[in-house]
Parts: sequence; C-alpha cells; structure tokens
Amino acid sequence: MGVVALLTDFGVDDPYVGVMKGIILSINPNAVIVDVTHGIGKYQVIQGALILKSCYKYFPKGTVFVVVVDPGVGSMRRAIAIKTSNYIFIGPDNGILTPAAFDDGVVDVYEVEKYTLPVVSRTFHGRDVFAPVAARISMGKPIEDVGRRISVKSIVSIEISKSETHNGEIIGEVIYIDSFGNAVTNIHPNSLRLLGIEEGNLVSVEIDRIRYEIPWVKAYSDVGKGELLIITNSFNYIELSVNQGNASEALKLKVGSKIIVKPCR
Amino acid sequence: MGVVALLTDFGVDDPYVGVMKGIILSINPNAVIVDVTHGIGKYQVIQGALILKSCYKYFPKGTVFVVVVDPGVGSMRRAIAIKTSNYIFIGPDNGILTPAAFDDGVVDVYEVEKYTLPVVSRTFHGRDVFAPVAARISMGKPIEDVGRRISVKSIVSIEISKSETHNGEIIGEVIYIDSFGNAVTNIHPNSLRLLGIEEGNLVSVEIDRIRYEIPWVKAYSDVGKGELLIITNSFNYIELSVNQGNASEALKLKVGSKIIVKPCR
Amino acid sequence: MGVVALLTDFGVDDPYVGVMKGIILSINPNAVIVDVTHGIGKYQVIQGALILKSCYKYFPKGTVFVVVVDPGVGSMRRAIAIKTSNYIFIGPDNGILTPAAFDDGVVDVYEVEKYTLPVVSRTFHGRDVFAPVAARISMGKPIEDVGRRISVKSIVSIEISKSETHNGEIIGEVIYIDSFGNAVTNIHPNSLRLLGIEEGNLVSVEIDRIRYEIPWVKAYSDVGKGELLIITNSFNYIELSVNQGNASEALKLKVGSKIIVKPCR
Repeated sequence: MGVVALLTDFGVDDPYVGVMKGIILSINPNAVIVDVTHGIGKYQVIQGALILKSCYKYFPKGTVFVVVVDPGVGSMRRAIAIKTSNYIFIGPDNGILTPAAFDDGVVDVYEVEKYTLPVVSRTFHGRDVFAPVAARISMGKPIEDVGRRISVKSIVSIEISKSETHNGEIIGEVIYIDSFGNAVTNIHPNSLRLLGIEEGNLVSVEIDRIRYEIPWVKAYSDVGKGELLIITNSFNYIELSVNQGNASEALKLKVGSKIIVKPCR
Repeated sequence: MGVVALLTDFGVDDPYVGVMKGIILSINPNAVIVDVTHGIGKYQVIQGALILKSCYKYFPKGTVFVVVVDPGVGSMRRAIAIKTSNYIFIGPDNGILTPAAFDDGVVDVYEVEKYTLPVVSRTFHGRDVFAPVAARISMGKPIEDVGRRISVKSIVSIEISKSETHNGEIIGEVIYIDSFGNAVTNIHPNSLRLLGIEEGNLVSVEIDRIRYEIPWVKAYSDVGKGELLIITNSFNYIELSVNQGNASEALKLKVGSKIIVKPCR
Repeated sequence: MGVVALLTDFGVDDPYVGVMKGIILSINPNAVIVDVTHGIGKYQVIQGALILKSCYKYFPKGTVFVVVVDPGVGSMRRAIAIKTSNYIFIGPDNGILTPAAFDDGVVDVYEVEKYTLPVVSRTFHGRDVFAPVAARISMGKPIEDVGRRISVKSIVSIEISKSETHNGEIIGEVIYIDSFGNAVTNIHPNSLRLLGIEEGNLVSVEIDRIRYEIPWVKAYSDVGKGELLIITNSFNYIELSVNQGNASEALKLKVGSKIIVKPCR
C-alpha cells in the first residue's frame, strides 16, 4: 500500500504524468497512485498552492503528495519534502507546498538529496527527483533519509490572498475559475455574516464598476436556469455562479478580478 | 477489492474527481477506482444516461458506479442507490441511472440517507454523499443500510430517444459526437436491414435538407481518406464518420441534428 | 499484479478508455492499469510511435503496453503482440510498436488470434481485441498462446525521423509539441557538440528563413521570463522553449517545421 497523490500543471495530453507513474510503480509496485489534478494553469504556482491547500485533507492520512508546478526546474531552487501532522508533501521549494503544510501543521522539512534517479535531467524533476523520492517514502523508507533537515524559516512561503473588510465593504478577488465557469472568490461566508448578510438575502456585488444585486442561495437551482447567484461552495468560499450556465463568461471574470461585496439596501 | 467506476461531467482540469478518489480511498483503502469518463457535457443528464447505458456492461460484475451529472445538487432531489442484477448504481434521482439500471434489471432502489460525510455541502455531493456511500458499499456494507427502500415507480426516469420508421424512411437523430468527430445516431442497423439495406450498399442520408449517398461500410478504411461513410459502431448504433477525418465538422452535425435514412434507388 | 499501460489517441472526453479498463479488470481483477497518455494526435501513428519509444523504459519490467492509434481498425491489418527483452507490446501492425520494440530488443512476434472478446466489432479493437489480450498476458498467460508466431520482417516498421548534418549545418525538424508549447526537435545534443557548440553558447537557429541567435542553456530559468532558449530535454532531444512561455506559438512552429542549427559566429 501507500497512496501517492499527484498534482501538476502537466495536463493530460503529454506522457509526462504517465512516465512519473511508471517510475513510481517501478520502485513501489504496491503504490496506489491518485491524480489530484494535472489541470493547474501552466507555471501557476499560487493556483497550485491554493488547490493543494483546499484538497489535501480529503485524502487518506499518510498520503504522499507529489506537487510539480516548477518553472525553476534545473536552477538552484531546492527540492524539499515536508512532514506534517498527517501527510508528506514533496515538491520544489517555491512555496507551492506551504499553505497546505502550514494548515496541517509542519513537523519537519528536508532538502531532497537522495533517492533520485541515478541521472537527473535539468528539465523533468517530476520524473527524476519527485516521483522516485515519493515512491520510496510511500513504501516506508524514513523521510529522514532523503537529505538533511532544514529550517522551516529557510523555505519559500506563499500566502493565499485574503479578502479585507473596510467601511462595511468586503474587498475580495477571484482566485479560481472552474470548468463550469464558477468563479471562486477569496471571500469566506463569515465575512458576509459579519456585515449582517444572511443566506437568502440579495447581496450587492460590484465587478469592474458595475453593481449587481445577486441572491445568496443555498443551492444552484434556487434561481432559474441561466440566472446569477452567489453560494457558499464546498471549500467554504463564496462563489459566483450561473444556474446551469457559465458565470465567468457572463461576467467576464478571470483570476484576479476584483469583487466588492456589501449588503443591499 | 471492490471496483468503483466514476462517470461525471466534472472534466479533468479541476480537482473535483481527485477529491472524490481521496474520499473513497480514505474509507476503503482497497477500492479499485476506474474513470468511465468525466467528459459528459456540463449538466447533460441525458448524455450521461446514454453513455452509462452503453458502457456499464463492460465492467466487472459487482462494480459500484458513481454517476454525477447533477444540476439539482443541494435541492430537494433525492440521492439514490439502485441494485440491479449485476451492479450497483449510485447518483442523483434525475433519471441518469435509469436506462442502464432498467437494461440490467432493477432489483431494488434505496434513498441514500446514511454513509455520507458528517457535514454535507450544498454544492458537491460527489464528495460528500455519492463517493462515501459508494466506498462503503464497495467494501461489502449491505446496500439496505444506505436508507429506506423506495418504489421504482417513484424515481425519475429518462428514455434514450429512438428512431422511427415511416413510409420507408428512418427518422433519427445524432445522440453523441465523439472526439474523433464521429456522429453516433439513435438508429440501429436492424432498422436499415428492415428496409432491405445491407452493409456494402450506398444509403440515402438526408441532413438539414441536403441528401447524401453514403456507403454503409464494414471498416472505416473501406473508403478513401477523407471520404464519408456510415458504419455500425461498437455500441450497435449507426454512426456517420469520415475516414481519418471529422464527420461532425464536415457535415455541421451536433447532438440533436435530424437524420433521415432510406435506400438509394 | 501485472502492469498494463495504455497509450492511445482516444482522448479523455469519451468513455472508450474507461471501457477498455472495465474489460481488463473483468478478466484480471488484479491488473494495475496506468495511462501513458491518451493525447496522441488523432490517427497520428508516427507520433504515437515516438512517444512510446521515448517513454516505455520508465515503466516496470514486464509491463504489457496496449497501444491503439489505429486508423486501419476493422480492415485486413493484423493485430500483433511483440515480446521484447523486458516488455510486451500489443497493438495494430501499423508500425506504432516497432521503434520501442527494436530499441528494447525484439524476442518474438505473434499475430493475435485468440483471447479476444467472443464478438469482435469492426470499429473498436481497443475494447474487443487489445484490452482482453493484454489482460490475459498480464495475468501470466503465455504470449505463445495468443496466436501463431510470425516473422519480424513481416511486420510494418516505422522509423522516427533523424536530423542530418551537411556542411556544418544540422537539418532537423520539430517532432513533438507539448502542452507547454515546447517544440521538441529530432536533433540530439551530440550533433551540436560535433560542430563545436557547447551548452552556454549562443546558437544560430533558422526557422522558415528567419535566423535567431538563441542561447543553449542548462535550465529554463537561465534566461529571463518570456525569452527564447534551447535546452537538452529529458528525452535527450534539443528542444526550443520560452521561459514560462509558449515557444511554438511565439515561433509559429508545428510538427514537421524545419529547423537549421549551426554555430554562431
């Protein structure tokens, strides 16, 4: 056994993910390999960090995560392995692991120096470094053996952006757009409640200087087909959506679009 | 062991399918998880029903199917589990399960009330309801335990459209277009045979008031590269195709396009 | 156990790959199924052969590869199984298997006549022929049992194109473009070294009569974001790339684009 979960920006059209799986099974024939997703935007380290943080806790305790969004591959950036309270995270030292790792509680951080393939390319550490290290840890090799322990303070850290509330307005932004066109914001439902907004209320939402009055619903189908809504999504963020439609196309939203939310009056 | 097969409209760019797999392995570490496909058109319940019905019988007996095309998530629509002669089907009560379930033979239907995650969101029952229920059934928990037995008549039922023959003409429609551009119709080869058409014949095919004479071949390569053909496809439907080309682009076909077939004379 | 690795042009939007997996697990419940990729260009046999040759050696010894890029399905083209020094390759006799098989060392070739499904369609041998044969071999059935032994000389063979050097110029071409826009050429780094070019040098690269001077770097990030580079990729080919960008869009490259490389002076 031993679950190895893969999260990359490789997509599924190339053989890169397949080759990583081949390496993992060559080293640990009993590994159970799961794709978290390979649809992270190319080179989008922050998006990868957000998705990892949102998803890791749904995987079995002990899962070894291999996370490869790695524009610095082949440079001096380090490869690291982080042991947290319940998981192991392996990837480049570019911050992609830290929001998830700090959320779960960092126990120890190691620089990866061993367990790689005998020859390491300068362009594909997913295959040559991260996959073989994960395979060995998934079969029970102690994480201490991957290399020297390094200080938590020495690793690159990323913060997921947070919304702010000023003068009765919540200033947030779109942090993810899914394949349904749902626009996930960095606004938590509690921020709305602190302004006295409840589910069922109409909410004032300003996007690119246009103000909408949008109902905060409990289910997509609480509004008619094609109508705008906001909803608390399954990762506890406020999401802009269109019932059976595509909110991001309708509102021309993209990652980073500013969103201002306040009560309707 | 225990095979859990997933069929959704989630696509593979988001982490939704990965999270469902994480939940399943958290509950049943020995589950064998297989993707049927996640490429069902967004919210296209009828397309999902068609694909499930066409594919289920190629999976091992005892497979637990988790089927999530669910525009009504979070509303009053029920979650159901259907035991058939050879399989278990789990999904929303919107009809997506019924063509497959009736094809295999319904034994019992249950409303899902137990085995869900402790907290159930209003937007992602794939993770909170369907995956955990499937995981528990795949590890041998009796289906009777998921909730109360309900009447087959009480569940929403979908019919896959059927072609009709009038005055020596078969009136059908395109029900699926695959990634090769092959246009699958709801016409069975027997309907052609009943009109005296045989493989090897030229066939009259009318699309949007334009009449084509197209050979009914036994293999794509029976015509030259780039030429139109019709063929009995691997799910026993008549399919419009172009040898090494894209029939749907060439003929501007989409799902729902009307097709009129009759003998050439 | 028994690893079965799948490589096709089926994409992931249709249920075709899922159905193949259902068949494999129906026959060998213990098979470990891995996707190499299903993103080979539709009908692109040569591209499939290139990817298979580049990737097979990263999979566990004994892996059974099922390779389906098969425009001739249903015609007289044979289905074959090749035993090599370390692997089994199964697919159509259209050459897609041969670059990998010859690279690993062919031991024996068999025409597939047995172990197929009872009824074989004319359009989907992935399901009806290749998957069931692979499943049986993966569970230990001897390859000799699939059909009669045939001569290596009788099978269709494909050559991956090679670059040539004339008068101090390397004439090559783009053989693959990945989802990052990296353009992989058929030029090996040794060809550059034979002309006295070293990593770190500026290199003259001519594309469609335009001459560029591009640095041959050791890591993508050796140049600024958005800048052109060439690099030895992880499969030992020279690759044109843009740091955190898309080289194929920037240079309007496609598979087959001619590339002329020589030293800068």
